[in-house]
Amino acid sequence: MYLNIIRINTRDRTFRTEPVPEDFERLGGRAFTSRWVFRNVDPEADPLGRKNQLVIAPGLLAGTPASSVHRLSVGAKSALTAGIKESNSGGNVALKLARLGIKALILEDLPADETFWILKINKNGACFEPAADLSGKGTEEAAAMLHSRYGKEVGLMIIGPAGEKQCLTAAILNSDREGYPARLCGRGGMGAVLGSKGIKAVVIDDDAAGKVPLTDEEAFKEAARKYTGLLRTTPQTSEVYTKYGTAAMVDVTNALGGLPTKNFSRGSFEGAEKINGRALYQTIVARGGNPSHACMPGCIIRSSNIYVDTAGKPIVRSLEYETMVMFGSNCGIDNLDELAEINRLCNDIGVDSIDLGGAVGIAMEAGLIPYGDPASVKNALEETRTGTLLGRILGQGGAITGKVLGIRRIPAVKGQVMAAYEPRAIKGHGATFATSTMGADHTAGFTIREGLDSHEREGQVEASGRMQVNGMIYDSLGVCLFAHVAVKEHHDILAEMVRGRWGWKWGTGELRDLAIGALREERGFNRRAGLGPATDRLPEIFSEEVNPSSGTTFDLSPEELDAIEYR
Amino acid sequence: MYLNIIRINTRDRTFRTEPVPEDFERLGGRAFTSRWVFRNVDPEADPLGRKNQLVIAPGLLAGTPASSVHRLSVGAKSALTAGIKESNSGGNVALKLARLGIKALILEDLPADETFWILKINKNGACFEPAADLSGKGTEEAAAMLHSRYGKEVGLMIIGPAGEKQCLTAAILNSDREGYPARLCGRGGMGAVLGSKGIKAVVIDDDAAGKVPLTDEEAFKEAARKYTGLLRTTPQTSEVYTKYGTAAMVDVTNALGGLPTKNFSRGSFEGAEKINGRALYQTIVARGGNPSHACMPGCIIRSSNIYVDTAGKPIVRSLEYETMVMFGSNCGIDNLDELAEINRLCNDIGVDSIDLGGAVGIAMEAGLIPYGDPASVKNALEETRTGTLLGRILGQGGAITGKVLGIRRIPAVKGQVMAAYEPRAIKGHGATFATSTMGADHTAGFTIREGLDSHEREGQVEASGRMQVNGMIYDSLGVCLFAHVAVKEHHDILAEMVRGRWGWKWGTGELRDLAIGALREERGFNRRAGLGPATDRLPEIFSEEVNPSSGTTFDLSPEELDAIEYR
Repeated sequence: MYLNIIRINTRDRTFRTEPVPEDFERLGGRAFTSRWVFRNVDPEADPLGRKNQLVIAPGLLAGTPASSVHRLSVGAKSALTAGIKESNSGGNVALKLARLGIKALILEDLPADETFWILKINKNGACFEPAADLSGKGTEEAAAMLHSRYGKEVGLMIIGPAGEKQCLTAAILNSDREGYPARLCGRGGMGAVLGSKGIKAVVIDDDAAGKVPLTDEEAFKEAARKYTGLLRTTPQTSEVYTKYGTAAMVDVTNALGGLPTKNFSRGSFEGAEKINGRALYQTIVARGGNPSHACMPGCIIRSSNIYVDTAGKPIVRSLEYETMVMFGSNCGIDNLDELAEINRLCNDIGVDSIDLGGAVGIAMEAGLIPYGDPASVKNALEETRTGTLLGRILGQGGAITGKVLGIRRIPAVKGQVMAAYEPRAIKGHGATFATSTMGADHTAGFTIREGLDSHEREGQVEASGRMQVNGMIYDSLGVCLFAHVAVKEHHDILAEMVRGRWGWKWGTGELRDLAIGALREERGFNRRAGLGPATDRLPEIFSEEVNPSSGTTFDLSPEELDAIEYR
Repeated sequence: MYLNIIRINTRDRTFRTEPVPEDFERLGGRAFTSRWVFRNVDPEADPLGRKNQLVIAPGLLAGTPASSVHRLSVGAKSALTAGIKESNSGGNVALKLARLGIKALILEDLPADETFWILKINKNGACFEPAADLSGKGTEEAAAMLHSRYGKEVGLMIIGPAGEKQCLTAAILNSDREGYPARLCGRGGMGAVLGSKGIKAVVIDDDAAGKVPLTDEEAFKEAARKYTGLLRTTPQTSEVYTKYGTAAMVDVTNALGGLPTKNFSRGSFEGAEKINGRALYQTIVARGGNPSHACMPGCIIRSSNIYVDTAGKPIVRSLEYETMVMFGSNCGIDNLDELAEINRLCNDIGVDSIDLGGAVGIAMEAGLIPYGDPASVKNALEETRTGTLLGRILGQGGAITGKVLGIRRIPAVKGQVMAAYEPRAIKGHGATFATSTMGADHTAGFTIREGLDSHEREGQVEASGRMQVNGMIYDSLGVCLFAHVAVKEHHDILAEMVRGRWGWKWGTGELRDLAIGALREERGFNRRAGLGPATDRLPEIFSEEVNPSSGTTFDLSPEELDAIEYR
């Protein structure tokens, strides 16, 4: 099948289908979005202006008959970090784009007025339909309206009120396997960029699209069999994630003194047992919810969940580690029902729960919101929906909230709040937060399982560099990073799957080259965007102030951080 | 007389007097503060953290018997711009420091708690006295209390409530000739740095200090005679500034379509005649105020004024162009009495009226405050004093206000609001705003009098580079930039005054070398602080959107801006 890119002009609401440029043919997911942005977006562009482009690309393996491979990448210059950004998620959108033979959607320019539109994608290309009735709606209601208009089977990418207001933490919510807007491109404000382009929702209709073709079906199946075998025989992917989801991490980080608590002032939480994986699992099971939900069709890891209330009614899909910690221990809240409700609100408003959890933690340190008070948190989130001053401050994320409120301990890098790993106690994640082209992301270089003493300096920068390459491979293939725990160094199996899908003679070397090339392009973009090496740092206070739970500071030197290598 | 620097540790509240390092001996004012910061402050330091240093240095000619030469420089890494900063002002502080034989005061480290102190400087060095009773006080009341405690003759540097809260636009208010806290180091949040160091006020007692010695008194007098002659025979310095003050500029910029109006959406204002130099002069004279006040002892230009109410009671000293425009046309306000009252409030709260005027203009565009409504503006400023959410947002300046409120036309560079020159209509100032190490400052490279067609591109970058060198010379000597209109290319006279004061065999070449060296050090600091060339730009919207009053966009290219040379 012939693959295309669809370039959509959001000013005159036209599109054109183009063949994939030769040097983009072997890219997918993040490698595609990042090279596109690197090549086509002025690094000095106003992220919310006419020159920015939003790039939506399925991973290279999306749509193939394997587990956990349908991730979607969304890339642009970020208004939050002022650098290049890629944010990816599960769900069913990438699979549908792959089935339609779409390599990428590229949204260009800005509309001349402030009306919102639905961008509909199907086998004929793209068209715009008015979204006036959706404007201002939360993502839950908007999704229901879109499903009633376009059918239950379409894929959705939606922004909430936060995206319409171009809040810097606005997310894009993608439909999951059953069509719920539950899988987020959360980080870096990609929802603000989509909002700036006047798009309330992208509707992907893959009706009449066939299966994704496999160039060498036998080779693919053989590779996929090995891959599935690893997933099935690794306890983490066959049991731990399936049962406890990402929340399994709570006990790990808490034990290390690395569970962000009360605005990152310490790393362990007295209420940790009430918000850990076991508590989550037991609560969901006791109420008849689903602790082992697959966000993507065909996923056997099933780390997602459907959290239900005492009557068995779903509150949120899915309650996960980052939200449970950033609004949990980081805000002094130890009640899962409240955290589920807070998560639901974040999703409905359409904001990144990591950055918002960070912002609320800062507002708590400033005394604006009491620690451990979920009712006040929910009120504050509703203010982000309606756009009061407090709501607008929080909606710009933790970095701006901290500046406005005069708080010195701002857990953010390049304007983006750290994911839920205390960097003084988990130094490899600190190295990733500091040096990643993405700002303080966790998936960008996930080191905690790399066998190092997380309190020690040795090897952390090297591990971060290695895992940044690894992360780029997964993000470009569209494979869920959780598979890494099973696949580990067996990148040859991933390469074989690529060969089966596309027929390219790829081995592990090509995967590495793809990843390292993309990382270098991202870094090149950032440097030209004005983000010098001095922005590859944690806030000074993390080097100065001891994390009382771990007894450590962040002591990786600027020289060590600058010496990071992609291997 | 032997000159010293006094290094003050704000954590343990000790000081030590040190000889001036050899390579700082021939520096003063901005050249001193910038080299000190360049050499001694980690460019990656948190500006409000322990590693930043606040450097207070009189210009090289401060204290000498000449007109308009006693300017004071305050330098540090700025929390507003994230780069190096120097902000200078008139008044009597530099003169008193010079008399005490103090080359510079260096404030280091941070206090361990949040109490505020008075730092008292006299012939014996430095001491700390409690400032508990001053805490929270506006600068007017604080100054009165300090004068009653320490006498009318001491020099003062004070922060207001904004500085205590470390608002990013907090100013330092310096005493004028009569002791009023009326001369501001306004730009770049130097008041926040002083506040972070727990200093509410610096009191300079030059009792028992002799005159500033002149190494070659005859040579100095001869040079000063020529210098004074130029001031007295140039209409601008002998009549225009004296009569109308800086407000003389209103008619000039308005005629060019370069008077920032309604959040920089246009460049001419229907109420311009109500807020121009003539209106100001006539109002002050009719009420018995002083239109020709000298802010520094011995100044013959006397561009300052004492604006009085209808009963002849002083409202503010001094109402000047930047405030009159940023809160005037930029906020749609055409009433001088209201502008004077707004100015008084800014001074009392201790904020930069340029950045606050920009922030309020943005809040007006966002619909939070009505255009042309001074009562609402005054209420908003009072909120900056008390620290409500709106007050805190505005107190961080226009750049953050714009981000929080989701406004795209943010007239700021490197986080700092542009001074009151519309950069599309006055392109040389635009070039300075973009490329100056200081963010969007006007005095950093004042091109409007350089004889170019301000709407045209030709020669603007060259003029900016030349005037950035010129500005550095004045800021380092402590000479008021207004003297430049008279002195023009006769830098030899300034060099002769330096020879008379210090005995160094200086000519114009040494002045240029001093300035170019200091500018390069500032730029080097910024680059290492993470501010790449991409930050040397105006916001994209100024290149995209036509200023309807001038019919022009800002069309100096990134390449042209990067090619700026210091000559």
